[in-house]
Amino acid sequence: MIPPLPDLLIEPIVRAALAEDLGRAGDLTAQACIDPDARLAAAFVSRKPGVVAGLSCVRLAIHALDLAAKVELTAADGDALRPGAVLARVEANARALLSAERTALNLLGRLSGVATLTRAYVDAVAGTTARITDTRKTTPGLRALEKHAVRCGGGVNHRFGLDDAILIKDNHIAACGGAAEAVRRARAFAGHLVKVEVEVDTLAQLDEVLPERPDVVMLDNFSLPDLREAVARARGQATLEASGGVNLETVRAIAETGVDVISVGALTHSAPVLDIGLDAL
Amino acid sequence: MIPPLPDLLIEPIVRAALAEDLGRAGDLTAQACIDPDARLAAAFVSRKPGVVAGLSCVRLAIHALDLAAKVELTAADGDALRPGAVLARVEANARALLSAERTALNLLGRLSGVATLTRAYVDAVAGTTARITDTRKTTPGLRALEKHAVRCGGGVNHRFGLDDAILIKDNHIAACGGAAEAVRRARAFAGHLVKVEVEVDTLAQLDEVLPERPDVVMLDNFSLPDLREAVARARGQATLEASGGVNLETVRAIAETGVDVISVGALTHSAPVLDIGLDAL
Amino acid sequence: MIPPLPDLLIEPIVRAALAEDLGRAGDLTAQACIDPDARLAAAFVSRKPGVVAGLSCVRLAIHALDLAAKVELTAADGDALRPGAVLARVEANARALLSAERTALNLLGRLSGVATLTRAYVDAVAGTTARITDTRKTTPGLRALEKHAVRCGGGVNHRFGLDDAILIKDNHIAACGGAAEAVRRARAFAGHLVKVEVEVDTLAQLDEVLPERPDVVMLDNFSLPDLREAVARARGQATLEASGGVNLETVRAIAETGVDVISVGALTHSAPVLDIGLDAL
Amino acid sequence: MIPPLPDLLIEPIVRAALAEDLGRAGDLTAQACIDPDARLAAAFVSRKPGVVAGLSCVRLAIHALDLAAKVELTAADGDALRPGAVLARVEANARALLSAERTALNLLGRLSGVATLTRAYVDAVAGTTARITDTRKTTPGLRALEKHAVRCGGGVNHRFGLDDAILIKDNHIAACGGAAEAVRRARAFAGHLVKVEVEVDTLAQLDEVLPERPDVVMLDNFSLPDLREAVARARGQATLEASGGVNLETVRAIAETGVDVISVGALTHSAPVLDIGLDAL
Amino acid sequence: MIPPLPDLLIEPIVRAALAEDLGRAGDLTAQACIDPDARLAAAFVSRKPGVVAGLSCVRLAIHALDLAAKVELTAADGDALRPGAVLARVEANARALLSAERTALNLLGRLSGVATLTRAYVDAVAGTTARITDTRKTTPGLRALEKHAVRCGGGVNHRFGLDDAILIKDNHIAACGGAAEAVRRARAFAGHLVKVEVEVDTLAQLDEVLPERPDVVMLDNFSLPDLREAVARARGQATLEASGGVNLETVRAIAETGVDVISVGALTHSAPVLDIGLDAL
Amino acid sequence: MIPPLPDLLIEPIVRAALAEDLGRAGDLTAQACIDPDARLAAAFVSRKPGVVAGLSCVRLAIHALDLAAKVELTAADGDALRPGAVLARVEANARALLSAERTALNLLGRLSGVATLTRAYVDAVAGTTARITDTRKTTPGLRALEKHAVRCGGGVNHRFGLDDAILIKDNHIAACGGAAEAVRRARAFAGHLVKVEVEVDTLAQLDEVLPERPDVVMLDNFSLPDLREAVARARGQATLEASGGVNLETVRAIAETGVDVISVGALTHSAPVLDIGLDAL
Repeated sequence: MIPPLPDLLIEPIVRAALAEDLGRAGDLTAQACIDPDARLAAAFVSRKPGVVAGLSCVRLAIHALDLAAKVELTAADGDALRPGAVLARVEANARALLSAERTALNLLGRLSGVATLTRAYVDAVAGTTARITDTRKTTPGLRALEKHAVRCGGGVNHRFGLDDAILIKDNHIAACGGAAEAVRRARAFAGHLVKVEVEVDTLAQLDEVLPERPDVVMLDNFSLPDLREAVARARGQATLEASGGVNLETVRAIAETGVDVISVGALTHSAPVLDIGLDAL
Repeated sequence: MIPPLPDLLIEPIVRAALAEDLGRAGDLTAQACIDPDARLAAAFVSRKPGVVAGLSCVRLAIHALDLAAKVELTAADGDALRPGAVLARVEANARALLSAERTALNLLGRLSGVATLTRAYVDAVAGTTARITDTRKTTPGLRALEKHAVRCGGGVNHRFGLDDAILIKDNHIAACGGAAEAVRRARAFAGHLVKVEVEVDTLAQLDEVLPERPDVVMLDNFSLPDLREAVARARGQATLEASGGVNLETVRAIAETGVDVISVGALTHSAPVLDIGLDAL
Repeated sequence: MIPPLPDLLIEPIVRAALAEDLGRAGDLTAQACIDPDARLAAAFVSRKPGVVAGLSCVRLAIHALDLAAKVELTAADGDALRPGAVLARVEANARALLSAERTALNLLGRLSGVATLTRAYVDAVAGTTARITDTRKTTPGLRALEKHAVRCGGGVNHRFGLDDAILIKDNHIAACGGAAEAVRRARAFAGHLVKVEVEVDTLAQLDEVLPERPDVVMLDNFSLPDLREAVARARGQATLEASGGVNLETVRAIAETGVDVISVGALTHSAPVLDIGLDAL
Repeated sequence: MIPPLPDLLIEPIVRAALAEDLGRAGDLTAQACIDPDARLAAAFVSRKPGVVAGLSCVRLAIHALDLAAKVELTAADGDALRPGAVLARVEANARALLSAERTALNLLGRLSGVATLTRAYVDAVAGTTARITDTRKTTPGLRALEKHAVRCGGGVNHRFGLDDAILIKDNHIAACGGAAEAVRRARAFAGHLVKVEVEVDTLAQLDEVLPERPDVVMLDNFSLPDLREAVARARGQATLEASGGVNLETVRAIAETGVDVISVGALTHSAPVLDIGLDAL
Repeated sequence: MIPPLPDLLIEPIVRAALAEDLGRAGDLTAQACIDPDARLAAAFVSRKPGVVAGLSCVRLAIHALDLAAKVELTAADGDALRPGAVLARVEANARALLSAERTALNLLGRLSGVATLTRAYVDAVAGTTARITDTRKTTPGLRALEKHAVRCGGGVNHRFGLDDAILIKDNHIAACGGAAEAVRRARAFAGHLVKVEVEVDTLAQLDEVLPERPDVVMLDNFSLPDLREAVARARGQATLEASGGVNLETVRAIAETGVDVISVGALTHSAPVLDIGLDAL
Repeated sequence: MIPPLPDLLIEPIVRAALAEDLGRAGDLTAQACIDPDARLAAAFVSRKPGVVAGLSCVRLAIHALDLAAKVELTAADGDALRPGAVLARVEANARALLSAERTALNLLGRLSGVATLTRAYVDAVAGTTARITDTRKTTPGLRALEKHAVRCGGGVNHRFGLDDAILIKDNHIAACGGAAEAVRRARAFAGHLVKVEVEVDTLAQLDEVLPERPDVVMLDNFSLPDLREAVARARGQATLEASGGVNLETVRAIAETGVDVISVGALTHSAPVLDIGLDAL
């Protein structure tokens, strides 16, 4: 099972999302139309096939409005879903449940969308040694949750921010007067628990940086032959990450070049929502 | 020009996004590789055609890390972009600019993606009287910005939350024992500045609610002939909103039935990012 | 029963109020004088006649300091109170209860004061078709609670902020070059779920705006004869709101002109507190 | 001049108040009707006589929406105002100024109302040695500002919270088995910079506590003869504070008994707003 | 028993500390190595002699990650500890407990360090009438907790901030043109519940201020003979506080001069941590 | 120069620290004694030798209370200081400067204390290949600043939290049934940018884990001969970190065994403050 994030980290996000939706006056429709003591039993149901992520958001959203609600999760983050799959059964105060519904679905659908798209990439490279990874192209405020969703889809996480690994790009290289020098400076600066990755555009640049022993080399927009050649030159010296021009049509060929990791920005910046609904029981 | 949101509302989002990316140690790569006093001139450039939204996020992100940075916006929210269009020119402390880059792009790209998709729908219904509107299926924490992006794309906004309009759906109707009764209760409850919308599934339900004078009736998953019939029956009595099964293939036909508004969840829940980059000058 | 706001929205206000009162060192007097395990049974009792609002604040304040306290609410928001009426019975850790007392009373007394004053206005117009409404002249930070208190007193709410309805005033009219043009611009700008209200100073201005079909027209500082004339001219075309110079002496005559709504700033900006105390049992 | 609170403490309150008013979509009316670059010159003008407090809130509210606005304060906190007195002149972006207007007025009017009522009490006891003081019956979230307003009206501040002084009341006395014992415990507990006040209901209780040397004794609901007698018995041994049944009719007689301080809850819990408006120039 | 601070004040500190440690991805090691349902029983054990403070932080930290954890506190704040003393027994979800361990220990060890050092000073002056007090030289964000720890060690608290007492120092005296004038201004400014302390450097300055009746006089860097002389001159007129050059070698001699209070900045700015660990049971 | 943290990360800490000190009423002493327009020129001066860290906190604290203050930093983080060294010259509003003084000094003194102690360890191992590193035993809320101070003292940083590296300790090993298995699970779980460290207690355990290729092995409480033997066995296969029983007497001998890194909890949990003061000019 994919380890969930601690509620301590998710709960503020969920409560802020609810407050954003409730606004200043709360749910006018529920107040007008629903008896204050009415109960509602309902199920979160997937309308489409996919991979689920974010179930703890559902639990937290409902409990934020009805502490005594019964929420039974009938799936686990990372599960593959068929259409009609029941993800959770809820029995709660009707006003609370209807008020929480959209917030719960917005988080669940979005995160499951990320997991589903990730799974498609992971499946596309099945049988190769390549792993699918994400980027920092995440939704502001939701990075931890979206990176969790990538893990639910079978991917691995790239760095979480600017501070937990070094990733040297073209502007940094230009400022240092060369890729090798940039890696040397990074090595000297970094603590012993920080990995150093450098982005290269050409095989020549790869040759330049390998002697500096970066932990990871990102091969940016390499052709398939160049990727293969890079694998041949670098194997054993650094982890190789392919980047750029990756989509579901191209990813398998890229994986078959032997690179270790393939990073895909679309996992988090362009995943369509997974269609999940709430059905009254 | 599309009126931007006040900075007061956006700045906390931008600063939280930067803090999320900077983490506890800040930008290790910039610290290691970039001279503290180095300057960088660069431009935000669109790689694809689209509609821009969120330029004030760019300005705020850069100024949050370098108060003295020069940021010249060369486009305005709502502008149509050709590939290569320059959106902003920046001259700033190099570390600050490189540290702010991803946050600025994440917001700009996401919001421009929403605006671009909205524009596609708006263009698809050009010449009809139908307007394109959004839903509450927005990213938690970004609702105000994403609704602004919809306006940038030429759409109009549906309600912003549970508290600024009443929208009666199936569960509310069931709880009230009928759609007409639900509208009556909503009318009695609502203040004089709150509009009341009710969702109906059939023409019979439409007939039932019209005498209660709802401000808006949502026609959910109506066939095209039923939409046309609904327009005929209701015209003049309520605003009609078509909902369900709307995509770029179907939207024009729906618009041509004469409905007033068409709501599209995908505008905010499934818009792919618009590809925008930062180029050193 | 008046629907309460969700605890999610009130709890941060209550906890911030407690923290404001507890300061850095907590309740020195309780620490010095009260045994840590002592229990206290007490009742919240109204000293004066009035209308209660804000009982959930009492419950939340006490539970914030003693999660295991027993709080039994013996009245409901909106109830009319005679002097001596018991609103809630509490049995709790004595330190916690005494520390929470002032915060609970400050919120309860203030909100009940708003409800009580509102009820006086509502009673004054009994038998007419006019409803009493509030304004945005609320206490910073407490708008949602004070508007709830207005509902508890039998009033209806005007808009909750600058964003949930359009209200065109003299400065807007001046900027647009006329009231009719201002309403036209507002209509074109507003989404289909936003109502448009315009303030007019004269009957001539009323005649000017009615053809633009505003949802509401505010008649500002109209004489009684002019109000009656306005009702005659506008009936059926727009909701009419009387504003300005409203007090308990004048409100009935204003209501009898036939206006739909009368807005009263004093409900929230000048309501004296309702005297409620905590009596040990 | 009354020393203002540091902006650091006020600015979060002002910005939260603005955000509360702007909601999710900002000021729809200004967006619809006011040109984005339009300027507006206006003055904050008192409509009634009174005492001003809270001018820095005006400055901060306007600058929060228009950093470049020109705000000239033409009065100072604590100034007595005649009707028509100009408190501040502003020249700002028109949208920003109109959006900030209500927040600025809500704070300014409320705080000036507190200052004005305080001044009435202070004037009523002029020539006696009694000072007027406030209580903890303040608006949640605004205690620091309202206590500042009391100073602007010529009053002095009672304790700011539960943590900066000890005030022993009936429940504490009951828990300690007597007033003298309660004062002894408080003395033993309190640090050398904390004052100890005890509330007594009778002259006998006063006699009981005086030997314990409390810094202040609150005489709760004493008759005028008893107040005079208390002054005679205690003078020189403790500061005497009269409390209970204080209003503008009774306060002078109370002051003339010779008590040192008179506390008035109404200063903050029931002060009507001072009517101040914004006039376009 | 030392009264603890309300959880309401501590919980935000504990949760922020946990969030600081968990970062964006949570506890990677626990996720990788510990079964999600594994349980762990463990005890918080002191490795060194000392005085404990901050046990409620331990309880709150563990419950923040595992609401159902069993936490049995087997000591109380203020207890003297022998090496090996068990402070708390915990039985909890293993991941949660291991993730909370460091945060709990960081707070507990630091606060116990403060309490332990305070106790050393208190013991050093045993038998004299001098009390040991702290300063405002506390860790930003932890003042309330560190001042609580001082009380746990047997000390008393000096003022908690700039707002709960007046302390006139050299710069203030210079600005007023003399110490006596400074005390007069402070007296006139202060409310009746605020104490006034003044710092003097010489006996002459002491003589100058005593007629103004300050509540406390701080004798800064006085020699032992001068302290004795100051006690002789001032006794009965003001509380005397010795300050400057205080350490464990000098404190007893200072106390024996007869001063009332001795303030020690090191209590909070230089106390080494008390070594406490978590042992699996 | 040591790269400072972005102001964006420090400013909230500084402002919260100021608010903690100002409380509800602000600086009473400054208000009472200092003219509102008075200016003060002063210098931050070290009273003792040491290493400075945290100068940007000084700048931010003063500017938070006086935006127009002139703050000239005359030293840089990481500089070695002699007694009397001037770190910053300030010319500001006198009230603002005196109100900010303690907050500025609390941060500056504490961080400089950390830097100074770190430098002592770094100097002690000069000439060896060992680097000095910190731990997670930091002050809650100040981790980023204290880790920065360690860098200012010449140390390198260990991981910043539970989420940016894996560190397998005894409890994790027990849960996995062995150190080798624990490392294998960690490797499988970790992304390609996360380093894996494992703590071992014996040479046998070292032998067990080395084949799993951990990035770092922590040798916990090893004797000097065992450290030497560990270096001999592991060199080239993993970074070796010595931990436990490290103090200024033992650290050089540990460094001379050839380990790569030595971690010292005392750097952050027990560093005494560096004595720095503010002198009026």
